[in-house]
This record gives sequence, C-alpha cells and structure tokens, in this order.
Amino acid sequence: MKLARCTDGGAPFWGLVDVAAGTVTRIAGAFETWAPRVTRGEGLAALELAGPPRPLAELRLLAPIERSSRVVVAGANYSKHLVEFGLKPPGQPFSFLKAYGALIGANDPIRYPPLTQQLDHEVELVAVIGTEIDHADPLSSVLGYTVGNDVSARDLQHSGPPGIGMDLFAAKSQDATTGVGPWIVTRDEFGPGSPRLRLTLRVNGETRQDANTGEMTWDVAALLRFVDQRSSFACGDILFTGSPAGVGMGTGIYLNPGDVVEATVEGIGTLKNIVGPKSPPKGEK
Amino acid sequence: MKLARCTDGGAPFWGLVDVAAGTVTRIAGAFETWAPRVTRGEGLAALELAGPPRPLAELRLLAPIERSSRVVVAGANYSKHLVEFGLKPPGQPFSFLKAYGALIGANDPIRYPPLTQQLDHEVELVAVIGTEIDHADPLSSVLGYTVGNDVSARDLQHSGPPGIGMDLFAAKSQDATTGVGPWIVTRDEFGPGSPRLRLTLRVNGETRQDANTGEMTWDVAALLRFVDQRSSFACGDILFTGSPAGVGMGTGIYLNPGDVVEATVEGIGTLKNIVGPKSPPKGEK
Repeated sequence: MKLARCTDGGAPFWGLVDVAAGTVTRIAGAFETWAPRVTRGEGLAALELAGPPRPLAELRLLAPIERSSRVVVAGANYSKHLVEFGLKPPGQPFSFLKAYGALIGANDPIRYPPLTQQLDHEVELVAVIGTEIDHADPLSSVLGYTVGNDVSARDLQHSGPPGIGMDLFAAKSQDATTGVGPWIVTRDEFGPGSPRLRLTLRVNGETRQDANTGEMTWDVAALLRFVDQRSSFACGDILFTGSPAGVGMGTGIYLNPGDVVEATVEGIGTLKNIVGPKSPPKGEK
Repeated sequence: MKLARCTDGGAPFWGLVDVAAGTVTRIAGAFETWAPRVTRGEGLAALELAGPPRPLAELRLLAPIERSSRVVVAGANYSKHLVEFGLKPPGQPFSFLKAYGALIGANDPIRYPPLTQQLDHEVELVAVIGTEIDHADPLSSVLGYTVGNDVSARDLQHSGPPGIGMDLFAAKSQDATTGVGPWIVTRDEFGPGSPRLRLTLRVNGETRQDANTGEMTWDVAALLRFVDQRSSFACGDILFTGSPAGVGMGTGIYLNPGDVVEATVEGIGTLKNIVGPKSPPKGEK
C-alpha cells in the first residue's frame, strides 16, 4: 500500500494512494491507531477509509510525518560517500536529529537558505517507524519506506567548533529544505531483510548519485537497534539511513536556484523538488 | 507569573502556579493561543483560568513544553566549562537538538541509561519561546525562563567518529534523563536585557556548579538570533543556554543511582530529581 499525508488547503490528513487511478482516499482515525496495525501485517483491514477517492493532482503531498514525531538521521553510512568528506569509516553508526520545520513534501520548493553558498543534495532511503522497536527483529517495527533528500549546507556543516565537530544543526535543519515523500510504501511490498534498492538523484535530468541501499555500512536493522538503544523510537518517527557518493561536496557542483532535483528509490517513487530563489537574511546581521 | 505544565494522571494541562498558596489553577485554551499574548505583555489578562485552584502537591509537574515543540541546546557557552573538555572557546555559538523523550519534569527520577558509565549533570538557564523571533529585539520573543539539567552521558559523547565530532544525540537524548522545570517564570519578573542570575547545582547537598548566567559567552539574545537564522523557532520551543564549570567531566565525579540532584536558578526555583537505578540494556547486544 502507498500511504500519503496530504492537504487540500485545510488540516493535513493521511490517505491511501492509488497511483494507477490517480486518487487518494482519506484514512479515518489517528495515525497512532492504524499505523501499528498495518505494521503488524493487518494490511488494508487496518484502515477505515473515509471516501470518496479524490484526485491526487488536486492535493498537496506533505512530508509523511506528523509534527509531534521526530526525524533521526544516520550519517556516514556509505563508505564511498565518506571519501568525499576525507573521512575514514567510523567504527559504529552515527546519528543526529533534524528539525521538523526543515521538512517539505514532494513538489514543494526547496528553500535556498541565506547563510550558505554550498547547498547540496543527499538521496536517502527513509524508514518510517510503526511500533516500538523489537530488538530481536527491528524490521518488524517498520511501517514502510519513503524517499528523502537530506539537503545540506556544506559550508555551515564545516562551521562547527574544533573538538566538538560538524554543525549538523545549521547544515541540516534549515527551514523547508529537506524533501520527504512522495508517500510511504508499506514494508510488505519489499522482500524480507534490509531493503536492497537502487537509489538515484538527478539534477536537471543529469544523474549525480546512483547506488544501492545494499551498500550501506550498517543496514536498516542495525541502525534501528543502534539509535533505539540510545533514544527510543516511537510510532511515526522517521529514520534517514545515509546517502551514497555523488554529492556536491565531492564534485564541487552544488545546487542553484531553479535546479530540478529528483530523488528516486526503486519501488517507492520519485521525490521531485525545485530549488527556490535565495532567501533574504533574517533580521539584522 | 509562574506557569506549569502538569498532570493529575490524565491529559497534561497548563496551569498558573501560586507558590505561596501551594495551588495550581488550570489555564483554558491552547498554549499557542495564550502564550504569545503573555509574551507580548498582556499578563494575567491573557489567561482564561478554569478554576478552582488545586493543591500543587497533588499534581505531577511535567517538563513545560509540548511534544510538538522542539528542544534546542546551545553548548560551549561558558568559557570555564570548556576547560573541562580541553576545548578552546569557539568563534561562534554551537547548537543541536535534543529529543523530546529525553525530558522529565521536576521530581521525576533521572533514568540511568544502560550504555554509560559517566552520567553527568549540567545546570542551565532555559528560555521558553512565546512568539516568532524578532531579530531587532530577540528577548521580546521570550515567554519566560525555566531551569534545565542537561544530563549527559560523557563516554557516549566522546564515542562519535573522528572528523564528524561528538555524539551529542547519544550523550544528550537518552530517554527520561533531562530535567526541565519546575515551571516557567514569565519574562516580566526579570530585569531588562539578558538575565544575570546565579545558577547552582548540588548533588546530595554538595555544591558542584555555582556561576552566573551573566558569564555566558553569548547572551540569550545572541543565541536566539544565531539559532533562528539557521532554523526558525516557534512558540513553545525551548532553548538550553549552556552550562558553567563544575561538571563531572572536569572533576571525575559522576552521578550515581540514588544521588539527589538539585539544579537552581535564582528567581525561578529548584529542579530536584533523584537518579534512578541503572536501566537494563534494551534487547540483545
């Protein structure tokens, strides 16, 4: 099933997407009520649909996460990507939090923040958590997967203090920069185990990143265990699982206003966002 | 005014605290409705009280922040504290996000997480945001101040990968470790400008940290501007403003199960929490 969070201009709602028909049917009830049931394998029977189906084209797709949930990002998870930063593979996973306000949906513009000159892309597989993490079988706690573009301000990322580290907050929590979507594809549509899916990122039609989620240093199950041992996941949280090589940090080719950015993960879909004009600085300098 | 978030076992609610009388009176309506009005100086007139007053002693105080708001932490903001980490003062502020699930209220036990042997305390002044940040006068956007104890797992803090930096997520987002409270004291009860208040932390009655918020490298207004230029604050967000010297990282004296930890900020109150027993590890290793 494909589950989207969307709006017709009013309050956001969750819906079941029928891509062939180009429709979305509203799901009644709270996400925390039906998402664990879908995660446990009840399928369509877990959803109370509040029809009729509405044209997908008339709705705005939002990031498939509610404001009260959290966004966890695992970094340094594809060894070739680390070369772009001049880093050696770490001995264990590394994770941090992203602000909810950084998120945008499929087709929303990517805000170009005022303090950066090096806006960069990062296609990622994103896991959506449906229940508490079962440490014996972490993947059984995943509702499904979606696509993320962890847009990063590289100059700000390197503005952190020596001895403390990268300023990942400044780099990766800029308002309205990180695309997530277009929807969640439920776990039952993938094979067993950690997903092995091709993920690509194109800018103006040119392929910049092209890899497979099977190349992760730590697979989805290992990341879920690692993060949850440090700070518990709850239903609705999402986990970015790292980005492969090909980002601007490695090539020197950053994003510019007007760029059309398409992040694709096999079996999920394409998240398309266009980079907006450079935003004016906030307040006084 | 003193504003608390509390529960009688049911849904959390906000209340007006009368310390002398030992009572809390429920505030009707949403925080986002009345908090901006209080922030703009309307005082008691902004609050619709839904009495009668209830005994404070019969309620549990929660961290004064809702789940949909975010917790921003500014680090490295007292120069003497940096010596304890062997760090030089950075050239600009540094901030990161803390998970909501890390928060506890006054009198709640501090969970001792299983993966650390070096659980440490950090008393901090915490600013509560009431409106969008006005960059010409950031303090005018502050609803009030509360006390925080940014409990940190130091060994995990230093487990981050070389070249990336400290693992602040593992160190500072552990479930149920960070005390915030006991309540918010509104800004009108302090003098103009960034607060200059004594802050202390005692463990089993022994003073470990004793400093003044006037010693901050970047004052509250500068921190608000810095963070908001990178990722916008919203009504209800809270900002930890850094901790002074005296932590276990400097002295080698860490927290232990049973320790009584009292974090106090002049003019606000004391946040008292007792360290719980060491938690068992989650799931398999």
